[in-house]
Amino acid sequence: MRIPTHIGIIPDGNRRWADSKGMSKEEGYRKGLKPGLELFKLCKEVGIKELTYYGFTMDNTKRPSIQTIAFTKACIDAVKMLSMEDASLLVMGNTNSLMFPKELIPYTQRRSFGKGTTKVNFLVNYGWQWDLSKASVSPSKKKNNWTSELYSSDISRIDLIIRWGGRRRLSGFLPVQSVYSDFYVIDEYWPDFTSQHFFEALAWYNKQDITLGG
Amino acid sequence: MRIPTHIGIIPDGNRRWADSKGMSKEEGYRKGLKPGLELFKLCKEVGIKELTYYGFTMDNTKRPSIQTIAFTKACIDAVKMLSMEDASLLVMGNTNSLMFPKELIPYTQRRSFGKGTTKVNFLVNYGWQWDLSKASVSPSKKKNNWTSELYSSDISRIDLIIRWGGRRRLSGFLPVQSVYSDFYVIDEYWPDFTSQHFFEALAWYNKQDITLGG
Repeated sequence: MRIPTHIGIIPDGNRRWADSKGMSKEEGYRKGLKPGLELFKLCKEVGIKELTYYGFTMDNTKRPSIQTIAFTKACIDAVKMLSMEDASLLVMGNTNSLMFPKELIPYTQRRSFGKGTTKVNFLVNYGWQWDLSKASVSPSKKKNNWTSELYSSDISRIDLIIRWGGRRRLSGFLPVQSVYSDFYVIDEYWPDFTSQHFFEALAWYNKQDITLGG
Repeated sequence: MRIPTHIGIIPDGNRRWADSKGMSKEEGYRKGLKPGLELFKLCKEVGIKELTYYGFTMDNTKRPSIQTIAFTKACIDAVKMLSMEDASLLVMGNTNSLMFPKELIPYTQRRSFGKGTTKVNFLVNYGWQWDLSKASVSPSKKKNNWTSELYSSDISRIDLIIRWGGRRRLSGFLPVQSVYSDFYVIDEYWPDFTSQHFFEALAWYNKQDITLGG
């Protein structure tokens, strides 16, 4: 079976899930923690080398503050949770902003936890325009390797993106690393994650070809 | 009905279509012309303001030259065909390369044909790295408007991308203009285009929400 090297995760649908249960929207985020850990463990078992979670974006922080506080807390908890695992962990996002939680500053340099088996990237206060803007600030001569011109240069090309919650769009997720990614969408909301979703996505990916634009 | 302002078209599957008919791969490209014109007319009827076709990429030109010649010819013919319509036409791609067909140089500045009703962009010898590299070459101060930092700055944000041929990936298609695009995939190959595909995609798009990352 052809296993992706790097999977991107868009864990969408927390608010719609909460709505559907008659809960307030912000309660949905807390329910995303357990799926995040389960998914990490599945990736480790299967031998996936790198995993990137879409935490929250600079755009997201324009939401009502009750929600902003809730998803920020969920991201802090998720990163701390992953730091208890065999992860080589990096939090990536715009730290020059009050919206970046200071609790996560220590994770903005990659650090190895446990056996450090799986490379894990967690996007926090990430913005695609911010990410690309590094090239304008400090243009390099390496025009053939765009990934090195990004703030997110330590995050490699993504083979498979899995998005929960039914929307078929990238919503600003790492535009450069996603140019050749296969994109699999699961209709269920992220808090309703099951391992079946993950294995379905892998089975689908296994049937795709790789052309890298060629 | 909510109609997209700008549709991106990835007309994939020409070679697989030819294979399935027992033809040589390069014969598939010629069969993409008629669908391209039909689609233009549908967009005009429905009132879509802008339409971008993914012609060929710098990556594609690494293919065997019999194919390169065939898809280049198909793109030249397609642009000439569209110049007979009510189109405001722009061919966008890296002209500093022998792979860019000199016949299309006159179209690399936007020009209005007929009533010029529909803005049409046609990517020819396009490369996403090439497109982004403008920011490194001539960095601007406008960090909040990335689209203006691209060679493709005259191509606006895309609302809906429709890809034929079943693959669920962007394959380097305008990464900046695609960050928030809804992505609809049709399993049939591009030469098997029917208007039904287009209306299915519009009906699906009509049910999506717009968040632009918010």
